[in-house]
Amino acid sequence: MSASTSSGTDLDPAVAARLQRTPDGLVAAVVQQHDTGEVLMLGWMDDRALALTLSTGRATYWSRSRQELWRKGDTSGHVQHVRSVALDCDGDALLVRVDQTGPACHTGTRTCFDGRDLGARDVVTQATSGGAAGGGSGGATGGGGA
Amino acid sequence: MSASTSSGTDLDPAVAARLQRTPDGLVAAVVQQHDTGEVLMLGWMDDRALALTLSTGRATYWSRSRQELWRKGDTSGHVQHVRSVALDCDGDALLVRVDQTGPACHTGTRTCFDGRDLGARDVVTQATSGGAAGGGSGGATGGGGA
Repeated sequence: MSASTSSGTDLDPAVAARLQRTPDGLVAAVVQQHDTGEVLMLGWMDDRALALTLSTGRATYWSRSRQELWRKGDTSGHVQHVRSVALDCDGDALLVRVDQTGPACHTGTRTCFDGRDLGARDVVTQATSGGAAGGGSGGATGGGGA
Repeated sequence: MSASTSSGTDLDPAVAARLQRTPDGLVAAVVQQHDTGEVLMLGWMDDRALALTLSTGRATYWSRSRQELWRKGDTSGHVQHVRSVALDCDGDALLVRVDQTGPACHTGTRTCFDGRDLGARDVVTQATSGGAAGGGSGGATGGGGA
């Protein structure tokens, strides 16, 4: 609908109005392999990155470290072809389902989370009996969730 | 190891040192159903929320809208029992694998992304031929990914 020079770089105003951005103008993008369900990485998108992701079918992010747009795979070849993009209930997160070529992580692992477990206690049984999240948080209700 | 009054509320300094927080001191937490792979929601954690999540087995977040700790399910009953927590390669995202009771979203849908598709163009074929992410982003390389 827009002029060819700006096609794909301007975000639909109706979508833009739904975004709840961080103080630096970004929305978190959860990236998931569309068929296996693996969570590959978390990226960040500004309005233009989201517009490009939606219009070109190539996942594009805002690099916080480099402060520039970054189209995944341009240097590594590890591209992400977009299958779907959804915005969550309160507008601060995107779920980008992709087909990932090769490893998603710059370290060479398939996902950015592989082998980086923090060792949560296995307290499934204990947690059902009450847990220990008191001390100021009692009765807190949700933001986006409930 | 610490006194009982602070047990579970102080984050392991070795973990804290790896976190890359947003300007408001938070790390994004991608929450995934451990067996089905569904991405349920995105939450935010400060150091104390992460410490409680790791030590109690109940997913606990920082509510940006309410500016307080929020233990998922305390009011709704839709609790999340933690199965594992991993920190990504550059320390700005957590993957929290849980067993979710009932819907994760406060709107009543199973996930916060259900029915909220933005309608990305299906340009899988077109994208492989080059796409249109130029205009300033050419040659950009990755931040966390590549």
